[in-house]
Amino acid sequence: MTRRRIVAVIGAGERCRAEDRELARELGERIAREGWILLSGGRDTGVMAAANEGAKRVEGSITVGILPSDDRRDLSQYVDIPVVTGLGGGRNNVIALSSEVVIACGAAGTGTSSEIALALKSGKRVLLLRAEESAREFFATLGGSRVMNVDTAEDAVALARDLLSESERA
Amino acid sequence: MTRRRIVAVIGAGERCRAEDRELARELGERIAREGWILLSGGRDTGVMAAANEGAKRVEGSITVGILPSDDRRDLSQYVDIPVVTGLGGGRNNVIALSSEVVIACGAAGTGTSSEIALALKSGKRVLLLRAEESAREFFATLGGSRVMNVDTAEDAVALARDLLSESERA
Amino acid sequence: MTRRRIVAVIGAGERCRAEDRELARELGERIAREGWILLSGGRDTGVMAAANEGAKRVEGSITVGILPSDDRRDLSQYVDIPVVTGLGGGRNNVIALSSEVVIACGAAGTGTSSEIALALKSGKRVLLLRAEESAREFFATLGGSRVMNVDTAEDAVALARDLLSESERA
Amino acid sequence: MTRRRIVAVIGAGERCRAEDRELARELGERIAREGWILLSGGRDTGVMAAANEGAKRVEGSITVGILPSDDRRDLSQYVDIPVVTGLGGGRNNVIALSSEVVIACGAAGTGTSSEIALALKSGKRVLLLRAEESAREFFATLGGSRVMNVDTAEDAVALARDLLSESERA
Repeated sequence: MTRRRIVAVIGAGERCRAEDRELARELGERIAREGWILLSGGRDTGVMAAANEGAKRVEGSITVGILPSDDRRDLSQYVDIPVVTGLGGGRNNVIALSSEVVIACGAAGTGTSSEIALALKSGKRVLLLRAEESAREFFATLGGSRVMNVDTAEDAVALARDLLSESERA
Repeated sequence: MTRRRIVAVIGAGERCRAEDRELARELGERIAREGWILLSGGRDTGVMAAANEGAKRVEGSITVGILPSDDRRDLSQYVDIPVVTGLGGGRNNVIALSSEVVIACGAAGTGTSSEIALALKSGKRVLLLRAEESAREFFATLGGSRVMNVDTAEDAVALARDLLSESERA
Repeated sequence: MTRRRIVAVIGAGERCRAEDRELARELGERIAREGWILLSGGRDTGVMAAANEGAKRVEGSITVGILPSDDRRDLSQYVDIPVVTGLGGGRNNVIALSSEVVIACGAAGTGTSSEIALALKSGKRVLLLRAEESAREFFATLGGSRVMNVDTAEDAVALARDLLSESERA
Repeated sequence: MTRRRIVAVIGAGERCRAEDRELARELGERIAREGWILLSGGRDTGVMAAANEGAKRVEGSITVGILPSDDRRDLSQYVDIPVVTGLGGGRNNVIALSSEVVIACGAAGTGTSSEIALALKSGKRVLLLRAEESAREFFATLGGSRVMNVDTAEDAVALARDLLSESERA
């Protein structure tokens, strides 16, 4: 049995900018086309909702949502498999631990920043897709070569592909 | 989009009896044949491993493992989607919250008993499949009509089917 | 520095019987008189609230409440040190892991039962104080010699004293 | 009953610089002199260990350690009340939720950065004591007026005193 690879997309929720939502939609679709499982925070808002929507344009795609709470009204309709953690903000660590590569899409708020830091803490690679300048600088200091900056969804997926095939060989 | 239903199978790990492993294998296979997603603790031992193995005999099946830790050596090869919680025993609450019906397979140890109690706490229905006498009595007192006893994997799945179609109508 | 011992009192919340509340109050007071730290679920209801109230009758007592959520309205005024977990029902594992001996006071509901099971899973001794018959039988099967039954708060504290002094020597 | 205020000190563990350890020791002592409870990650290393050591120079001080795991060898001897979460890195959210003010001492690694982000997410004020330039800039963008920079332990405690007395009036 070959397991499908798991890639997380994280980013702003309610405060998400329109351009980051558009980017997330493209990113989700490209991830699904690679045959990877899309992991996200699963809520019906911002980058999470858009990435899942993009992924579900692709036949056979699988989307997993790691939810903070039991409130199903907050669940994106584009999540195939809702995992209810009951951990609130603590669910961010589950996202970090469960993914092989993490892609942070657009400007990062407090939740996203905690996820990036936790992903680095557990040794994961993090791709910052169109992050803001202060975030690029800070996370470069924090994570060194495990943090990479990209400007397009296409580049993010190409880089993730390289990273995943590296870890396969390892 | 119609979401596939999620049913958890829980039970003993290292101390699992051979007969409970056999039962879990059949149960996993029957759950997969219904088109439901199999949720379990994901480790490579006991009821978890056997249920996942049974499910993967069925083409198109999906198995999700809610793992206690980041130790991938402990992951059943029959889990399609490993979710790493980093919560240790606290991951039992994630299993309880994430499933629509919980089936406890065979004799219950401390971990399984905590999952049954947490599932009842969050309002879930729990099917006890060939539970021991003291467990049947205790959980009947604890959960009332939300706890049901069954003797075969076939009956467990038939009952789960009824419960799921009820909650669909609701 | 000699660390004060930590003893947990667990039991029903909203559905607590008047007699169990009275028992919890006495238990909390006796624990505080021993100089032990009282650990509980910290909410302003049932056994938790009563045990903390009893403990705070004693000068110099310390009470720690392991809270499910950030909702401070739900915090017993008799808790000195509120620890906010944000884990919901998952906080029960924190109570189990953080205490040296666990005393379950009165009839056990689903939350209390999950705590007893998790405490046994992590190797703790559990004293059942006036538990119901089906709980006594079930937990005896589950935990063997690590589960002990007592009928008075005085006996519970005397037994906890023995267990704590044993583990000191160990 | 007047509850003692709870202030968290967070910072690097194994990679802690000598100067940050010294700073943490002074900070812990000053916090204890205010009569506040010192909350930390509780491990026997870096800023955590030093802050607890400083606090225990003060008679009547109380130190609470929110530990990632059940491994007691890793517990600072200067922690009065060890709370074992079993959450690994997820315990950082418990620290964020349980404290009234958070002081990040010295250069921040991945764990500390996740704690700062989670504290801001839950609405807490965060004081950065001698943080590095890139961290100051990033967290200013992230947290706005809820993030404050200070250069001495004395200033940190003076500012925390103001913030605590504000929230008392609120």
